[in-house]
Amino acid sequence: MQPSDEGWIKLNTNECPYPPSPRVVAAVVDEVGIEGASLRRYPSPTSAPLREQIACIQGVSVEQVIVGNGSDDILNLLVRVFGGPEVATGLTLPSYSLYPVLVAIQDGGTEMIEFDRSMRLPVARIASSGATAFFLTSPNAPTGVGFTNVELEAVLREFPGILVVDEAYAPFAEENAVPLLKAHRNLVVVRTLSKAHALAGIRVGYALADAETIGLLDRVRDSYNVNRLSQVAAAAALGDASYYDAIIGKIKRTRDHWAQEWAKRDWFVYRSSANFLFVEPRRAGGESGPAVAQSLFEYFTMRKILVRTFLSHALTASFLRISVGTDDEMFAVDEAIQAWLTNAP
Amino acid sequence: MQPSDEGWIKLNTNECPYPPSPRVVAAVVDEVGIEGASLRRYPSPTSAPLREQIACIQGVSVEQVIVGNGSDDILNLLVRVFGGPEVATGLTLPSYSLYPVLVAIQDGGTEMIEFDRSMRLPVARIASSGATAFFLTSPNAPTGVGFTNVELEAVLREFPGILVVDEAYAPFAEENAVPLLKAHRNLVVVRTLSKAHALAGIRVGYALADAETIGLLDRVRDSYNVNRLSQVAAAAALGDASYYDAIIGKIKRTRDHWAQEWAKRDWFVYRSSANFLFVEPRRAGGESGPAVAQSLFEYFTMRKILVRTFLSHALTASFLRISVGTDDEMFAVDEAIQAWLTNAP
Repeated sequence: MQPSDEGWIKLNTNECPYPPSPRVVAAVVDEVGIEGASLRRYPSPTSAPLREQIACIQGVSVEQVIVGNGSDDILNLLVRVFGGPEVATGLTLPSYSLYPVLVAIQDGGTEMIEFDRSMRLPVARIASSGATAFFLTSPNAPTGVGFTNVELEAVLREFPGILVVDEAYAPFAEENAVPLLKAHRNLVVVRTLSKAHALAGIRVGYALADAETIGLLDRVRDSYNVNRLSQVAAAAALGDASYYDAIIGKIKRTRDHWAQEWAKRDWFVYRSSANFLFVEPRRAGGESGPAVAQSLFEYFTMRKILVRTFLSHALTASFLRISVGTDDEMFAVDEAIQAWLTNAP
Repeated sequence: MQPSDEGWIKLNTNECPYPPSPRVVAAVVDEVGIEGASLRRYPSPTSAPLREQIACIQGVSVEQVIVGNGSDDILNLLVRVFGGPEVATGLTLPSYSLYPVLVAIQDGGTEMIEFDRSMRLPVARIASSGATAFFLTSPNAPTGVGFTNVELEAVLREFPGILVVDEAYAPFAEENAVPLLKAHRNLVVVRTLSKAHALAGIRVGYALADAETIGLLDRVRDSYNVNRLSQVAAAAALGDASYYDAIIGKIKRTRDHWAQEWAKRDWFVYRSSANFLFVEPRRAGGESGPAVAQSLFEYFTMRKILVRTFLSHALTASFLRISVGTDDEMFAVDEAIQAWLTNAP
């Protein structure tokens, strides 16, 4: 839900609560110029300068990078290349809800592996899933649980297909899978600038993988999939690591503070390696469950606080996912919780 | 080819030689703001305000409009919905070279209908093609020949499938197919802001069709396929009709002037309804053919003038496609032609 009116505390789509690097504004204004003359020209079809910069930052070759119109574009390409009616695409439950939608568009089969409440990675089940490609969100959404490189490496060794590790939230985690690319040609790491880089509005994501895999994705990619302004905005953001280190650090501190506070209310909170918290609210009387989560969700909405429910699955139905906002926003959330605990029926 | 160095006269991809409306610059700068704060938010998933504006301008309902990341995105959606291994997608030869690429990605069959040199629309052959969807570029690329609504209506009446009329160049033509939407539910009109609106760099295109057809395309579309800056840039451009009337008028006058001039050299020039000219060069001795076209192409390139050849087909191999540039650019082209006529072996 993207509300069009003002005054909402919007903690439902894991956007960054802080603006992007000031260099982004400067880069866009510079690219537009006084007359907008550059806009009449097609952009670099391969996002060339941005792609080179990503290769340099991530320590891979340019041929191992593909840039997309948001990471959704990249995920779409992956499903088009590796999915289809004759093969199974592996997914976990819960994970990013877009994957099964993309697989269905390709008339593909899915092999669904369910987490249990521990959210421990079921390495053996993934390895023997028979999937051509397996999509793993790490840190997981919506729980925020991060998987270790030791676990991922176990999957990469034992799983014969392509392992897509969707690292939308990796900048908030302790570890990421990029160092595993060297030894594992079946690994695809997907990144986005929508979350940590505060650029959901410009739609840039990318993937890192073996050059041969990138070549397959590139054949299916729209020639001019990333526009000029997004290319320069993304490049400016990626060039300002110190700015992002600061805001990512702040978001992690805010996250960990409220994880502790809400755990003190005797709520179950998954240990988050992302920019959101997945919490199981309890009423004052100790009760939890889908109806309780729904009650708090509605109470939040009444106070113009947007968060997310995940009612379709037993593991997630009792939880709310709350994106980490500014301090003011988080205090407002906590006040709403306190009021709900006091007043809700 | 998109050269990265400076100094080229770039008349190979039919970009607009003039900058976009000044309102585009203002809209982008305004959306970015001082801090770029809006960029951290996802864009409108349906490009809502832009979609409403397009509906209003084109006299259709909002449900009859879909906005894409360039018209290539729209064409991709059309092929994904209406193409596939079990059906044939109808194409003409020549036309936009992207169509067969997109059909091949979907493992689809094609039904190819060749124009003869007259470029008259083969209505009966299209109608009986057996294709599920037929893609027609009107005005045609690379010849620039426009088809009349009388011809298109004959196809729409007789052809039982979906007729996609790709109107990338329609703003330069005398007629367009939008008025035919009312009576023909099997018509899809595709537009782009890359050509007449001088916005190739921002990637916005759209389609108009029956609401049911738009609904099918929408299901396959990436949720956030058009970024914030492109949405506001496109809206600003479409809101400044008088600016575009002026530059489109100028481009048409330049086009018609040089069509006449080069016809005076006894060159065959298709009557263009687009922003480019498709010309069959002749040497001073009267000779024409693929080698002659290639000779002039290479002579142009030596002088840093980029145009396009279409060597893969007999009908087009003797021609060059020259985008209409500024007056200065067109004089430089004509001077190069004169020098080639005088000096080339």
